[in-house]
Amino acid sequence: MGTASAPTSARTRPRGWRLTTLACPGGAPAAAPIHCAAVSTSAVPIVGATGALGFGLALRFGRAGVPVVIGSRDHDRAQEAAAKAAALVPSGSFDGARNAEAVKGAEIVILSVPFRNQSENLTNLKGALEPGQLLVDATVPLAAALSGKATRTLGVWQGSAAQQAQEMVPEGVTVLSAFHTVSAALLSDLDHRLDEDVLICGDRRADKDRLAELIGRIDGLRPVDCGPLEMARIVEQLTPLIISINVRHKVRAGIRITGLE
Amino acid sequence: MGTASAPTSARTRPRGWRLTTLACPGGAPAAAPIHCAAVSTSAVPIVGATGALGFGLALRFGRAGVPVVIGSRDHDRAQEAAAKAAALVPSGSFDGARNAEAVKGAEIVILSVPFRNQSENLTNLKGALEPGQLLVDATVPLAAALSGKATRTLGVWQGSAAQQAQEMVPEGVTVLSAFHTVSAALLSDLDHRLDEDVLICGDRRADKDRLAELIGRIDGLRPVDCGPLEMARIVEQLTPLIISINVRHKVRAGIRITGLE
Repeated sequence: MGTASAPTSARTRPRGWRLTTLACPGGAPAAAPIHCAAVSTSAVPIVGATGALGFGLALRFGRAGVPVVIGSRDHDRAQEAAAKAAALVPSGSFDGARNAEAVKGAEIVILSVPFRNQSENLTNLKGALEPGQLLVDATVPLAAALSGKATRTLGVWQGSAAQQAQEMVPEGVTVLSAFHTVSAALLSDLDHRLDEDVLICGDRRADKDRLAELIGRIDGLRPVDCGPLEMARIVEQLTPLIISINVRHKVRAGIRITGLE
Repeated sequence: MGTASAPTSARTRPRGWRLTTLACPGGAPAAAPIHCAAVSTSAVPIVGATGALGFGLALRFGRAGVPVVIGSRDHDRAQEAAAKAAALVPSGSFDGARNAEAVKGAEIVILSVPFRNQSENLTNLKGALEPGQLLVDATVPLAAALSGKATRTLGVWQGSAAQQAQEMVPEGVTVLSAFHTVSAALLSDLDHRLDEDVLICGDRRADKDRLAELIGRIDGLRPVDCGPLEMARIVEQLTPLIISINVRHKVRAGIRITGLE
């Protein structure tokens, strides 16, 4: 499979992939000199990857040797975004598909949509998500979803967007929460050297370990376990905090937890 | 005045002090070789400095050449804590006084009390706080205040403990919010080299600049303007997040905002 740079509609995704077994036996092949061979990695669908954050994640995962399926409500838009990603990261493996198609068979699904579209997307994915899958929710309930400020949030009945997602996914699907504090612009700026943390919330350590290993493949992103999913109530609030800092200091801020090393 | 190491009950605090004028003209005197002369600095009262966070801040400010008045409900406890601080930081200037006495004439007052005592303390300070003063609130509405978890918070009607404080202080007193993410234990461990941020919220830039200059005197603490006081809703939530990280990783975590330099 190697490092296909053009999107293909016929995807072959090895099943049974475990991140914990993803060492680079015998070194990486010549076509992917920096990272592990893409062949040993299950593709990661990103629902909403035509948006800024999802697209930035797609680029970075693609460059890290992780095959990415760009999900969109529209098949053509998904394919276009995959082609664009492949042009930006020629060594990456990108595919495009409708969201419900994109998530099939994946072990880890990333949900990166605006809060106003989260419920709709999760409703549409009800027949597509499968027991055993991990859904990584990156949604932030910004007040901007209802014409409010991007430095304020809406109250979510379940406590957080991630907890709302957990209520909506089919039984057997586990929701994790991550990627709220990483700038979409910096992810997409491939010349920018990332150096920040990704805060992860989730109820099971083993799930978080799997996600952490995936995140750790992106150079400069360090995953940090922040506790159970309910902590997403706090971590989701960091997005408006960072937006407020960005506005004040004219920067693209991120978060680093000190004292961990 | 120099660097009195013993607490004295007769305090002399120069008025009219402005942090912005606190350069070190002619260099620091021999007795305080690292920092500016304490003589040019107005004393900073810390209400609740017999507690862990307040005491840690007292030590660090003392070492930075900022005279500190340790406030407590009890005069003797305040004096004892001041003596203890002076023993730990012989170059520092520490005094102890009842809270209402401690805050008199100060430009910047730090409020470092548990959430369950915040209202009581502010009520007691109503006759003591003076128009023009800045009150820096470090209160966090941990659910632990009502026998809940330290990784959860209580809802505060005004939005945050800091906003509750703003509602309670006398007219003309301005509340800022800070110090929520700095470990009390690391502050008190004077061998520990701090390297983290202090997130500041407040409605007026000039007030935040004054506070930032004060915080910047402590080696290893970088003040970061996070926006208006209402952002304390978010920043106060970082304490339970850090507690959750501490528990999981067995560390004393803090926060660093990336991308600012």
